[in-house]
Amino acid sequence: METLRLASVETLLATALGEDLGRGDVTTRLTVPAGCRGQAFLTAKEAAVIAGLPLLEPVFRLAGGGVEVELEVGDGDRVTPGTVLCRLRGPAATLLSGERVALNFVQQLSGVATLTRRFVEAVAGTRARVTDTRKTVPGLRVLQKYAVRAGGGSNHRSGLDDGILIKDNHIAAAGGLAAAVGAARAGAPHGLVVEVECETLAQVDEALAAGAGIVLLDNMNLDELRQAVARVRGRALTEASGGVTLATVRQVAECGVDLISVGALTHSAPAVDISMGWAS
Amino acid sequence: METLRLASVETLLATALGEDLGRGDVTTRLTVPAGCRGQAFLTAKEAAVIAGLPLLEPVFRLAGGGVEVELEVGDGDRVTPGTVLCRLRGPAATLLSGERVALNFVQQLSGVATLTRRFVEAVAGTRARVTDTRKTVPGLRVLQKYAVRAGGGSNHRSGLDDGILIKDNHIAAAGGLAAAVGAARAGAPHGLVVEVECETLAQVDEALAAGAGIVLLDNMNLDELRQAVARVRGRALTEASGGVTLATVRQVAECGVDLISVGALTHSAPAVDISMGWAS
Amino acid sequence: METLRLASVETLLATALGEDLGRGDVTTRLTVPAGCRGQAFLTAKEAAVIAGLPLLEPVFRLAGGGVEVELEVGDGDRVTPGTVLCRLRGPAATLLSGERVALNFVQQLSGVATLTRRFVEAVAGTRARVTDTRKTVPGLRVLQKYAVRAGGGSNHRSGLDDGILIKDNHIAAAGGLAAAVGAARAGAPHGLVVEVECETLAQVDEALAAGAGIVLLDNMNLDELRQAVARVRGRALTEASGGVTLATVRQVAECGVDLISVGALTHSAPAVDISMGWAS
Amino acid sequence: METLRLASVETLLATALGEDLGRGDVTTRLTVPAGCRGQAFLTAKEAAVIAGLPLLEPVFRLAGGGVEVELEVGDGDRVTPGTVLCRLRGPAATLLSGERVALNFVQQLSGVATLTRRFVEAVAGTRARVTDTRKTVPGLRVLQKYAVRAGGGSNHRSGLDDGILIKDNHIAAAGGLAAAVGAARAGAPHGLVVEVECETLAQVDEALAAGAGIVLLDNMNLDELRQAVARVRGRALTEASGGVTLATVRQVAECGVDLISVGALTHSAPAVDISMGWAS
Amino acid sequence: METLRLASVETLLATALGEDLGRGDVTTRLTVPAGCRGQAFLTAKEAAVIAGLPLLEPVFRLAGGGVEVELEVGDGDRVTPGTVLCRLRGPAATLLSGERVALNFVQQLSGVATLTRRFVEAVAGTRARVTDTRKTVPGLRVLQKYAVRAGGGSNHRSGLDDGILIKDNHIAAAGGLAAAVGAARAGAPHGLVVEVECETLAQVDEALAAGAGIVLLDNMNLDELRQAVARVRGRALTEASGGVTLATVRQVAECGVDLISVGALTHSAPAVDISMGWAS
Amino acid sequence: METLRLASVETLLATALGEDLGRGDVTTRLTVPAGCRGQAFLTAKEAAVIAGLPLLEPVFRLAGGGVEVELEVGDGDRVTPGTVLCRLRGPAATLLSGERVALNFVQQLSGVATLTRRFVEAVAGTRARVTDTRKTVPGLRVLQKYAVRAGGGSNHRSGLDDGILIKDNHIAAAGGLAAAVGAARAGAPHGLVVEVECETLAQVDEALAAGAGIVLLDNMNLDELRQAVARVRGRALTEASGGVTLATVRQVAECGVDLISVGALTHSAPAVDISMGWAS
Repeated sequence: METLRLASVETLLATALGEDLGRGDVTTRLTVPAGCRGQAFLTAKEAAVIAGLPLLEPVFRLAGGGVEVELEVGDGDRVTPGTVLCRLRGPAATLLSGERVALNFVQQLSGVATLTRRFVEAVAGTRARVTDTRKTVPGLRVLQKYAVRAGGGSNHRSGLDDGILIKDNHIAAAGGLAAAVGAARAGAPHGLVVEVECETLAQVDEALAAGAGIVLLDNMNLDELRQAVARVRGRALTEASGGVTLATVRQVAECGVDLISVGALTHSAPAVDISMGWAS
Repeated sequence: METLRLASVETLLATALGEDLGRGDVTTRLTVPAGCRGQAFLTAKEAAVIAGLPLLEPVFRLAGGGVEVELEVGDGDRVTPGTVLCRLRGPAATLLSGERVALNFVQQLSGVATLTRRFVEAVAGTRARVTDTRKTVPGLRVLQKYAVRAGGGSNHRSGLDDGILIKDNHIAAAGGLAAAVGAARAGAPHGLVVEVECETLAQVDEALAAGAGIVLLDNMNLDELRQAVARVRGRALTEASGGVTLATVRQVAECGVDLISVGALTHSAPAVDISMGWAS
Repeated sequence: METLRLASVETLLATALGEDLGRGDVTTRLTVPAGCRGQAFLTAKEAAVIAGLPLLEPVFRLAGGGVEVELEVGDGDRVTPGTVLCRLRGPAATLLSGERVALNFVQQLSGVATLTRRFVEAVAGTRARVTDTRKTVPGLRVLQKYAVRAGGGSNHRSGLDDGILIKDNHIAAAGGLAAAVGAARAGAPHGLVVEVECETLAQVDEALAAGAGIVLLDNMNLDELRQAVARVRGRALTEASGGVTLATVRQVAECGVDLISVGALTHSAPAVDISMGWAS
Repeated sequence: METLRLASVETLLATALGEDLGRGDVTTRLTVPAGCRGQAFLTAKEAAVIAGLPLLEPVFRLAGGGVEVELEVGDGDRVTPGTVLCRLRGPAATLLSGERVALNFVQQLSGVATLTRRFVEAVAGTRARVTDTRKTVPGLRVLQKYAVRAGGGSNHRSGLDDGILIKDNHIAAAGGLAAAVGAARAGAPHGLVVEVECETLAQVDEALAAGAGIVLLDNMNLDELRQAVARVRGRALTEASGGVTLATVRQVAECGVDLISVGALTHSAPAVDISMGWAS
Repeated sequence: METLRLASVETLLATALGEDLGRGDVTTRLTVPAGCRGQAFLTAKEAAVIAGLPLLEPVFRLAGGGVEVELEVGDGDRVTPGTVLCRLRGPAATLLSGERVALNFVQQLSGVATLTRRFVEAVAGTRARVTDTRKTVPGLRVLQKYAVRAGGGSNHRSGLDDGILIKDNHIAAAGGLAAAVGAARAGAPHGLVVEVECETLAQVDEALAAGAGIVLLDNMNLDELRQAVARVRGRALTEASGGVTLATVRQVAECGVDLISVGALTHSAPAVDISMGWAS
Repeated sequence: METLRLASVETLLATALGEDLGRGDVTTRLTVPAGCRGQAFLTAKEAAVIAGLPLLEPVFRLAGGGVEVELEVGDGDRVTPGTVLCRLRGPAATLLSGERVALNFVQQLSGVATLTRRFVEAVAGTRARVTDTRKTVPGLRVLQKYAVRAGGGSNHRSGLDDGILIKDNHIAAAGGLAAAVGAARAGAPHGLVVEVECETLAQVDEALAAGAGIVLLDNMNLDELRQAVARVRGRALTEASGGVTLATVRQVAECGVDLISVGALTHSAPAVDISMGWAS
């Protein structure tokens, strides 16, 4: 939950409220009398894994404040259609003005958590961990990566600075795979493992020889994956990547890789249908 | 394209780069020699309607600059798999450091434009316009609404301040539908039309009597929609809303409504698969 | 009052304090002992309509906090010279450091409210509403438009995005009035009414024919205004604009227009004289 | 002109454009074809002293760019009605979208410069300098103080940190005038002169004895002012303050004071009427 | 302490936490269970003058909140090795995540205060005040100047706007020393004293003749300093500057100058060793 | 050099200029005529390793622009006293207004690079790399870590998010060292190595057994260090930390550790004396 308290997240919440409120909620200003209070609750309209509920408190605080948030479930919980997620009590104007932004966050993040959980369950019993990628929605990366964890997935690096991943163009620029890995090992902070993207088994061998700690097996078919795992023999972590879907993920996992990274977790997760109802 | 030049969009681009670069692209710093240049191109891997290409220039400017962007297609264009979208020339380090953020934007926005186009085509020949909603990804609203236009859709209000939409809770707080509409008409800026969410035909009548300019027909079935349109008889615009899918949108449109608002355009559009290749 | 709680307003308050405090209030730091407390009150030195009092709480919070604000009158109230507006209790240093900024806001906004009220009273009994314009002091628009409402006036659009107003240069660029109105009606969000600036009666006819919802009668004399109103016959709203003063506003209103927009409300309202006194 | 290049001024320009443009200029987007260019010019509609013209370049740059600005007069110039202030050439959309903000700045600042010039001329031939105060419009202080200089006036301190002004409440908190002045002299940066607000001649004596470098003669009548000047005999600067108007300023100056501070220069200067015309 | 409550200081604290936390404290997230609480204390490991303790409260508030801070000593206090500076109680995760930033501030500022105190003590009994300069660590100026005061030193101007200091290049540009001083006296806010940097005794004479209020004696030897002081005879303040060290400062002071400015106070003060221990 | 182009660095430069310029450089405004140009050069007054020169271009751009910067040496270069570092040509006002901020950056960063180089040279020929810590000056972390690299040192993690370092309090909270390491390995992004702070040899054994990739040998004496290295036998990296000075660093290195982290590189590096001269 610590992620949700970062100043950058608070900034994102304020940005989201700002883009919705603009110069102010004109409908609410004109129709809701001062002092009017309301009670509302969030309900899942479909089966889902929930993420983002702790954002409700700061969203309604930034939208005007005075709203009590009582959570009925927690992030990472699986819910059935009709489950009440939380209850809200406070000034009706604030509830109305903050409603859409609150829902947009919870719906998006629950979408990520729900899709992640399906991938995670698909590989249950194998050694593979399902990880996210940097293919995230602009501005939402730390939240989406939080939602991946809520869904049971693992995080890949969060950006270009907290992980080393040498791709073909780095290799070309550096004058070869061994040179690139060597430069990275010599110059990188010592707490970062050097990962190399490999498209062929020959590259896997080369990467291992150069001392890579992780080999990313890029768009390999199942047979190649199995061979790559066999060659690595535990000397490095193996990560399968490229076009993995719910239909194929289990087969990939059964090749013995340590990690399977899936861009769709964050770039194409459909929102979960969650609505806000009002207590009469 | 004017939308893409707003200062708030530039801020979003900088935020997205900031969350990816963090303290800097360590892999590129260690492997790419100063002065190394590259050429790259973006290619659509699937059929799509493209949106977001004008963002490439500012993304690479913010990522370090010196990159020439040559567009091969324009926003709103429909492309087939394999179509080259643009060519990029510049410092290899900048191309590498900006690649992911650039792709994330174009993939997300093209996803919105592509889904919108499908809805728009589904209602071709009817009077209905397909519009977006406020169910957008936090932080991306102006860009997503731009992408909806690129896809051929129309925009609903952009926030709580540039449109009036009276919902059941506003009505309850104001002491009735007529009171709410009256207050809105008396106090709103004169350039805003008053819209009222109606769940029953009786409410439609009441809204018309109170002088509403638009009636939102919320979750009505096809029969109710037809009746509502018949009652309104052009005295107000009619908007159908609630759970409309590609499978149902044409039937809804054929009920004669003026507008159909679809949340999925922006909350659940899958990203378009676009990749960045390098010229050797 | 909702307007005064927007994040953008809080930012403006912080900016105003920042430009006054700079690196800190050196006089107060050197002369006021820690722990020293004070009581102060704001007094109107002239007759006025008050606006901006709810800003006192956040101003003094941002200036150091710990100040109790007890309002004696409310925004929109008319006061006579000598009326105490509010009482303040708290750390003397905070009161001293925040005094000038607090007063600057209340004096400026009360100036707008007071001038607006005079215009509103001048047209009492006619059908005309007095509205503001976009001729506002840079940075203060939402606050000035709030003050116009506190003074009994109505708001025109708040910016270029929440209203459509087609002027002569838009018409020239679009290739004629009908073309411009047609483009606007086809492409605009459906909740925005299309307004057209007309300098002649012929243009009024053309605008009506094209389906404009509001005609702005620009710099017309009283006779032209009357004729314009007669031609429109309720098919659109009529707005008189251009050089309207307290001396002329009633005559303009008696021409039968629906709206009279007055730039001076926000660009030239003199500040109200309000002072902060200290209880001994 | 250096003031106009401060980063804080650029921020203010961006804020002003942001509050006007919001999510974008919808009228211009719908009616002005891409590539359409225009020429415009700013004209003073009344006699004025001009200030703010160098802001045109950054305003139109931030509004989209590509606009050539050709100034015909300079800040501080006195102009007659009908004088063309500058010519603009560029994309019609940018000219239209930036017009209002550009005018708002120049009209406000020219208002300050014009009013200042009238005060300065009223005291011509006396020793008195006319200075501004901290009674400025929130957010505009550095620009308004720039405009005061353009009008021929002098600046008082810009905030609470670049000048020392001991008022009655500081004196009370410090335990007397001498104690307050002593503390200020001992602790202040050595480049700041200590100024003391005096309401009586006895306080003037006390302030001089304590080593004040400037005495502010607060709300004194002409006779008191003359006596105060006589007592000071050049040992400190004398500043008259409080309710000085164009009608009274010369008499005040003739009392022999060094400085006359006038809040109205910045809190109540009416905007100068300036319009933007288009070349056909 | 007022300085420490400026909004710009809060921004700096947030920046410092942001650069340390990045996307979140991954070690703490993975190892510290929710609800785990801790107690810690700060201890000086060497003799020092302390500054920055009031920053602990906002640092831990921004780092997550819920931390009680109990100060055992105050800013400006001299402490011996082993002295406990404060006690902290709160969520273990917050204490761990905020620890480094909190220490970095207190160590840096105490370093400045400690070095300042040594200079101040070295000139005890002379008329000289030890002042800081603008040679500060970027971003830390107001805090470093606060620490100088905590150490017993005086502040020079804080920036280029709250003090006038005419250097050789200003003189050259203005066409001579007298011209430069004249322009400054005529145009500067009346509360600022004009200071002139002099490298020769002849320049001192010239500066006095032109009406300078302070002469900065730049890199003069002791003999020149004495002569300069003799020539000035109290008609202006005298400031010695240039390469003054703890070894030389007393001799400089004994030349009779009013002020000695020392860049090293802020550009080269070593951090004080302070550690955070945990109560078992 | 890529680090120096991060948006966060540009923000820091703007902050530094803002704290120096405030409302503008009053001396320069009053004494330097418009159009006056100048030439200046930076000279090292002492032997040093230089860092920060690429910041000169953006500093002077932000200070007003139009300045040509011609570097004579590069970051990481060792220079002797009197070496000219760069030449600057441009508007005199801009050179004067930006001078102090430009120097402050280069002096601070060169201080870090110079001190780092001394440590690096002291361990020449051993296997040890000298690394920085998180004991940095608030706000300057990425720049200081850049300067460490310019001085030949290595970087430790940049923050709490791009490296895992388990300390005693994490261990206590997690319920033991093995539990803490296990939790970290299970939950951390796979590209981060788990480092554990050990105060005893027993803890080193425990850390190795638990799978730590790096052991931080905290405040161990030389004998303990040697034994720790012997026990580890290459199964993990070894890092010596705690009170290492120039006097002791070689002995520490000769114990065979892989890394020696030194807080003083960034918390106590004295500024290098660099001055800006003007060409006549």
